[in-house]
Amino acid sequence: MKLITFEMNGYRAIGAVLKEDIIVDLHESYKAYLQSQNKYRYEEIANAFVPSTMEAFLQGGDEAIEEAKKAIAFAEQQEDATTRKLIYARDTVKFLSPINNPEKIICVGHNYREHILEMGREIPEFPVVFAKFANTIIGPEDDIPFYPISEQLDYEAEFVFIVGKEAKNVKEEDALDYVAGYSIANDVTYRDIQRRTLEWLQGKSVDGSAPIGPWMVTRDELADPSGLGVTLKVNGEVRQQTNTENLVFTVQKLIAFLSNLMTLKPGDVVLTGTPGGVGVAMDPPQFLKDGDVVTIEIDKVGVLENRVKAQGGN
Amino acid sequence: MKLITFEMNGYRAIGAVLKEDIIVDLHESYKAYLQSQNKYRYEEIANAFVPSTMEAFLQGGDEAIEEAKKAIAFAEQQEDATTRKLIYARDTVKFLSPINNPEKIICVGHNYREHILEMGREIPEFPVVFAKFANTIIGPEDDIPFYPISEQLDYEAEFVFIVGKEAKNVKEEDALDYVAGYSIANDVTYRDIQRRTLEWLQGKSVDGSAPIGPWMVTRDELADPSGLGVTLKVNGEVRQQTNTENLVFTVQKLIAFLSNLMTLKPGDVVLTGTPGGVGVAMDPPQFLKDGDVVTIEIDKVGVLENRVKAQGGN
Repeated sequence: MKLITFEMNGYRAIGAVLKEDIIVDLHESYKAYLQSQNKYRYEEIANAFVPSTMEAFLQGGDEAIEEAKKAIAFAEQQEDATTRKLIYARDTVKFLSPINNPEKIICVGHNYREHILEMGREIPEFPVVFAKFANTIIGPEDDIPFYPISEQLDYEAEFVFIVGKEAKNVKEEDALDYVAGYSIANDVTYRDIQRRTLEWLQGKSVDGSAPIGPWMVTRDELADPSGLGVTLKVNGEVRQQTNTENLVFTVQKLIAFLSNLMTLKPGDVVLTGTPGGVGVAMDPPQFLKDGDVVTIEIDKVGVLENRVKAQGGN
Repeated sequence: MKLITFEMNGYRAIGAVLKEDIIVDLHESYKAYLQSQNKYRYEEIANAFVPSTMEAFLQGGDEAIEEAKKAIAFAEQQEDATTRKLIYARDTVKFLSPINNPEKIICVGHNYREHILEMGREIPEFPVVFAKFANTIIGPEDDIPFYPISEQLDYEAEFVFIVGKEAKNVKEEDALDYVAGYSIANDVTYRDIQRRTLEWLQGKSVDGSAPIGPWMVTRDELADPSGLGVTLKVNGEVRQQTNTENLVFTVQKLIAFLSNLMTLKPGDVVLTGTPGGVGVAMDPPQFLKDGDVVTIEIDKVGVLENRVKAQGGN
């Protein structure tokens, strides 16, 4: 399934993208399904099993996914037979980031083998990890805000996994069981601010610097996260290109590594690293400017495209 | 006020510490107060203005603080006159961290002037900031878990402020208006893991590595965050000692700096930095071991004391 968070006239819910143009509201469809089964407490049962925010939904694990599939099957057949709206046309809703309030956003640096080697560096023994906070998250239809605090706004294409189950000391061979699904992020970076100190956080934590989307492809639809082509374009010009088979620390290795340090929780977002080709490394450096369009495409996941929009002064 | 989050038999709520031995349950007391005012919708009004989690309570800003004071005044007088329990003896409840699910935990490095100078470093132009996640938070009565992933467990005494109001591009002179209150944290660090890569996050994000407490002293009780003595002891031996007047980047400067980068939100926690005297810098280095007791005292705030407890293997 392709799961989304969407919004329409201030109403916000999670949904599944059925075909290109059809969105099923999971919570409302599940309620309608329960009503059709004569469950008096359909409201409470739906809140428990298929709630309307993604973090809460993922806490239900595989059971929630199975119940959501029943809701979708029901909605597909009953589209006009219930009193509440279950299905939306794509162009009537706004897609938000699939996840909006994770406990953790963990980013991995220097993780593409070919890029490490071309830079003359050694393959690292341990992943470099750093953080972003939830204030950075925006959706696939949002503009990337460019605040007048720097002139060095840069992009970083990232293949993303989202945690689906509490994970502590998980082994590599079991690791994929702990993934809810996959998405795309742009780890937007204010490059000079990042480099003011050795710790990168300040250049990575500006509001709106993590577009995520357009959806989360669930693990049952994308079983193998390796071998996926990743391309980033700025205004149509290819700037970054790699394949997830080049990851030094694969999704499995990252889950084993991270869950040895900390408890990963449903909804936690991990950005697995970016390949060569960022703007600051070009000669001369090419930073993003107002109006630029950044497009990231990952095989079997989709396309995340955002426009840069200059913001007013302080 | 000294505000806490407390727990008893699985019941969790926020409270105020009145005298050494008395805890007022703010949400329940506010409900009782509203009932005494014949408000039919006391339940809904209390959920709106004095909810039972600290993050939600702080979202109400000064208005919530004022309503909480009414609740306390009512509870003090009516202790035996209502059907619900408003007041607890200190030793019947467990204190948790005042804040448990902040969007951000921002830590500042190299921020004590005397320590920077004694190390022969320059006073930095910009603060070094790095992150912890909410999985690290434990309370003043919890043990510090020592996982068998390293033998270099270290302590860092930190003066903490908690954000009380959404802050974006705030000026230094207005900054203290955005503080809800102050607390104490131990930025527990797995030193060798911290130093495996240039980014410190991995040594800072282990479960349970941020004891916070014992309470939050609200800004109306502690108007000036400078001039406060800070002492850390291990098993009674003084290891760190400084005064918040030595902070290079004061609370005001940090709020101005951080809010220029990102929107600070009610409940966000900022650890303002640690002085010299950490275990790794001793000759020979002295790391924490099972059973050690770490005590941090900050003038006008209180004492945070936690015992180190070795955890089983993987």
